[in-house]
Amino acid sequence: MNDTPETKTDTLLESINSPADLRRLQPAQLPQVCDEIRRFLIDSLSVNPGHFASSMGAVELTVALHYVFNTPYDRIVWDVGHQAYGHKLLTGRREAFAGNRKMGGLSGFPNPDESPYDTFSAGHASNSISAALGMAVAADLHKDEPRRNIVAVIGDASISGGLAFEGLNNAANTPNNLLIILNDNDMSIDRNVGALNSYLANLTTSPGYNDLRYKIYRLAQKCGLVSDRRRGLMLRFNNSLKALLTRQQNIFEGLNIRYFGPFDGNDVATVVRVLKDIRDMDGPRILHLSTVKGKGYAPAEADPSTWHAPGRFDPATGRRAESEPKTKPVPPKYQDVFGKTLLELARADKEIVAITAAMPSGTSISIMQKELPARVFDVGISEGHAVTFAGGLARDGMRPFVGIYSSFLQRGYDHIVNDIALQRLPVVFCIDRAGIVGEDGATHHGALDLAYMRSVPNMTVSAPRNAEALRNLMYTAAHITEGPFSIRYPRGAGKTVDTDTPMHKVEIGKGELLRDGSDVAVLTIGTVADDAAQAIDKAAETLGINAAHADMMFLKPLDTTLLEHIAAKDCPIITVEDGTINGALGSAVAEWLTERGLSRPLVRLGMPDRFVTQGTPAQLRALCGYDAGGIFNAIAKVCAEKCETVES
Amino acid sequence: MNDTPETKTDTLLESINSPADLRRLQPAQLPQVCDEIRRFLIDSLSVNPGHFASSMGAVELTVALHYVFNTPYDRIVWDVGHQAYGHKLLTGRREAFAGNRKMGGLSGFPNPDESPYDTFSAGHASNSISAALGMAVAADLHKDEPRRNIVAVIGDASISGGLAFEGLNNAANTPNNLLIILNDNDMSIDRNVGALNSYLANLTTSPGYNDLRYKIYRLAQKCGLVSDRRRGLMLRFNNSLKALLTRQQNIFEGLNIRYFGPFDGNDVATVVRVLKDIRDMDGPRILHLSTVKGKGYAPAEADPSTWHAPGRFDPATGRRAESEPKTKPVPPKYQDVFGKTLLELARADKEIVAITAAMPSGTSISIMQKELPARVFDVGISEGHAVTFAGGLARDGMRPFVGIYSSFLQRGYDHIVNDIALQRLPVVFCIDRAGIVGEDGATHHGALDLAYMRSVPNMTVSAPRNAEALRNLMYTAAHITEGPFSIRYPRGAGKTVDTDTPMHKVEIGKGELLRDGSDVAVLTIGTVADDAAQAIDKAAETLGINAAHADMMFLKPLDTTLLEHIAAKDCPIITVEDGTINGALGSAVAEWLTERGLSRPLVRLGMPDRFVTQGTPAQLRALCGYDAGGIFNAIAKVCAEKCETVES
Repeated sequence: MNDTPETKTDTLLESINSPADLRRLQPAQLPQVCDEIRRFLIDSLSVNPGHFASSMGAVELTVALHYVFNTPYDRIVWDVGHQAYGHKLLTGRREAFAGNRKMGGLSGFPNPDESPYDTFSAGHASNSISAALGMAVAADLHKDEPRRNIVAVIGDASISGGLAFEGLNNAANTPNNLLIILNDNDMSIDRNVGALNSYLANLTTSPGYNDLRYKIYRLAQKCGLVSDRRRGLMLRFNNSLKALLTRQQNIFEGLNIRYFGPFDGNDVATVVRVLKDIRDMDGPRILHLSTVKGKGYAPAEADPSTWHAPGRFDPATGRRAESEPKTKPVPPKYQDVFGKTLLELARADKEIVAITAAMPSGTSISIMQKELPARVFDVGISEGHAVTFAGGLARDGMRPFVGIYSSFLQRGYDHIVNDIALQRLPVVFCIDRAGIVGEDGATHHGALDLAYMRSVPNMTVSAPRNAEALRNLMYTAAHITEGPFSIRYPRGAGKTVDTDTPMHKVEIGKGELLRDGSDVAVLTIGTVADDAAQAIDKAAETLGINAAHADMMFLKPLDTTLLEHIAAKDCPIITVEDGTINGALGSAVAEWLTERGLSRPLVRLGMPDRFVTQGTPAQLRALCGYDAGGIFNAIAKVCAEKCETVES
Repeated sequence: MNDTPETKTDTLLESINSPADLRRLQPAQLPQVCDEIRRFLIDSLSVNPGHFASSMGAVELTVALHYVFNTPYDRIVWDVGHQAYGHKLLTGRREAFAGNRKMGGLSGFPNPDESPYDTFSAGHASNSISAALGMAVAADLHKDEPRRNIVAVIGDASISGGLAFEGLNNAANTPNNLLIILNDNDMSIDRNVGALNSYLANLTTSPGYNDLRYKIYRLAQKCGLVSDRRRGLMLRFNNSLKALLTRQQNIFEGLNIRYFGPFDGNDVATVVRVLKDIRDMDGPRILHLSTVKGKGYAPAEADPSTWHAPGRFDPATGRRAESEPKTKPVPPKYQDVFGKTLLELARADKEIVAITAAMPSGTSISIMQKELPARVFDVGISEGHAVTFAGGLARDGMRPFVGIYSSFLQRGYDHIVNDIALQRLPVVFCIDRAGIVGEDGATHHGALDLAYMRSVPNMTVSAPRNAEALRNLMYTAAHITEGPFSIRYPRGAGKTVDTDTPMHKVEIGKGELLRDGSDVAVLTIGTVADDAAQAIDKAAETLGINAAHADMMFLKPLDTTLLEHIAAKDCPIITVEDGTINGALGSAVAEWLTERGLSRPLVRLGMPDRFVTQGTPAQLRALCGYDAGGIFNAIAKVCAEKCETVES
């Protein structure tokens, strides 16, 4: 494997249009296929950015799985699709890969709508074991002939999620032939955390024992000593042998799941051999493969966190476009405004602590972590724990800021209700990636948080329209004494370059009338205020429409004084929000109007009641009709209707 | 401990008004305190029903904890409050206990609003480790002097939840002195499931080794051999010793949490001694106590599932009021209509499978389980897994019915969105205990499901108004080919005795006009239709009001044809639903009206935007204003306002 492969023509990869083509190759040809997949990924992702390092590390595993198993009859369930690009290339999507993560193109994650080889959606971590167990049980109940093999792939970061543990705990308890592959690269997107990961690292350090154990197993198998009836005996034998040799224990076999490993997951011959050996065994089993994130591309191997999703880069030098020095100041990302402000607040108040679920860089909590590491807790992929842990901290006087992406926070919904809101604990939820996120698509859009947070009693629900407001909301939240406070902001940057504005408290539940007018009123929450302002300007210039614009800032409590001012105009109302229109700002305004028996035509703009796919944020907001153009059209339409009504 | 204690006067318990009083007693007096707590619980719960068997099993643990630890300075965090009645008696609430689970009385679960000894809300399982870890970290950061001890109690059923694993995984990874007590009675509400529980059962069978190991530890401690520096060494020593002696492994020490046990948790002297021994140790540790659910009351020991919450009973004979033969047929509970119908459907369609999360009896999935055990999956307290597992089953052709209580299903929210709805998998969610549940209070009311399900794209959201409609909705859901389908129904019984009606398909998204009228229109969803009908009758009789009544049946898709019929009357509209008014039926109707610019006064009745405490369902629905009386008042009020408007 070369770090900078040479140019070739007539590759093996070009001859593979489905796994059946792959299975016609000789084992000796597989390393070349792996090389070619890596070359393809480097070339493609350098110009069309995507997730890089995970798929690079999983190339041999991918090739071996499709070589050994009869896909798609046999099922492979990937956990978090970051690692599944090679899988897409081998399953008939090589040509289409240029459209990866683009509107109308391939999804960046496995997507059953896209291919029968994509057995399950895999955007949120830790679901592969549970989903694959369902398929394995279905195969068992259907008595599928020939036997249908089910494989769940899971990363060492994903396995720390509670859902993965629930899956493991149940896998051992149900008749099934599930094979779980632990793709262990000792990395989350950032570094891994948690006891289980220390444990896995230790397991990996005893290859001598594990190799011996595996050889004994194969010998026993050849001699007919291994059968389901004898399985319990073998397990005990293996475990005591292992304990004797390594003074270690095996958690998986504690759960009664047969364990094999660790093996070198970047050696395709090894992976093929082991998979063939254990493919037809009965009962649940786990195969532990050690892989290198970013394998085969030196810059990515050296810095896999950065290369998780590196953006555009020069394949020859590994220079990333994002790392180029900026010629003029650019507005910072909202996550960085959050990170810097959090540090500022934490410096001033020693009760402030921060919690991230495996995303210190993605949330920019890393900024505080660098200076105040003892007060930052990276709990791994464990959103439920992150929330409840914050509840315990708040109960005893700390002021936790929980920074989690909107769609991932869905994992902590019950915990927010029962462990925080019911007890009115002063936990601050900083909800990043709220609204349309773009290329990551349906599983990652923050579509629901405004709606599900609004239904939670005692919850303050807010969204800043710009960086300054984000800072003020965080400052305000840091000084509440009771009840949770949520602040949501989008992926990407705002428009302000200077974000070191002095902070002050804002009045909770108070919005701001940004512009008065009487033809139509536009009510916004969050950063869509910008688009609304553009649309209003254009409507004034081109159509002579005089629109009011209110930034509600708080979805709950709702600023009813401001609403009364708006309603007094007796003009149509347009609400705009970067999230579902089912149950959030538009609904709250509709409720308020109808409660008072007020008749005002109301147009609710936001994400529709369907899943929105991938594309650039601009494309998708346009598609959903709430970019500046969409808002302008809505203004023009309601005003035209109003005129018609008046004329008729 | 006698099963039928004699009558006594001047008890020790009566002298205990706080744990400080308990701590003044001699160790030899503690067994008497335990006896008296049991006597108290038997006497009290026999007339004032509540959770029985869990608290009976935890008496010695409760006494020992308050005896050894300096509560409330030291923190005890209970997991699921079923076991915390003894704790309430010892912490100043003996007199108030007669009001347990009653309106205005004590909560049936720990409740921080009630007592400083109740450190955290504990209505939903598996949260104690994460919450207590937060407190332990807070104590560490605050450098509390004297050292503040934090104890998390968790049951062997709760520990199988993913949240508990996330807590364990993080407990080992953070500087803290958390003591985790595993109260292991080998029971969930029903029997336990899962690999971890088999594992715990095995651990319990090696008391000889564990006792030896504990003695060695104490000896080493006395000799000064145990220190934090040596902890790693001791752990390795212990583990290899254990492996040698028992050929077993220890999952907890695999996670690097020091393990002690199992000990007899119903021997108060033992529990006090062990707690004192390990109280001041550094670092996270787990104490495994074996207890007997229902301990000290023979009928409960013999049948702990039934005695989890037995209702009223005769203390002398153990005869339960519920088990008395009925003199005339009574309407069945909705859960039984569900259970019987599920079996009927499953007999006819072999693809139908059922999933419960530790509640086979509570959901009545047990009815199908008895006849078709291979197609019923009890996944333990793992709601997230239950949902994702159903997704895997549905992907490969099965038709899963997932039966989970409304408030517990909140744990599976993200899984519903990403693992089911996004993929349009035909999973049927049968949401029991939807709406007000009564005595279990705030943590158990099914307040949010209508709102959170409505925001999920592709989800069909329905609620039957009676048993017949429940059967038809289940029949309809069994025959869909795409997309998830949810059916919600309340705790308790309806009004129909005959529930063996023939089933037929209903049109998805079609409601029914139950009564036409023009003064006011009442729109209901679910079983509140009964209350609305009563209110409408009374309004007709007493006020001459002619009200229309529509049963919407579907919240999504909404029957807009029916809404148009209603809107054409140009009369006020009242919506009634047994759930939050933020984001469900009332909101959907408000959205529909305002979208069309229609002016109709709209009154939304349902659960308000605050947490509702315990009480009888009738009391609580009256409190929230949507029992028959509340609906009548709303009808009278809007009609009076309408007349005023017309007159003025």
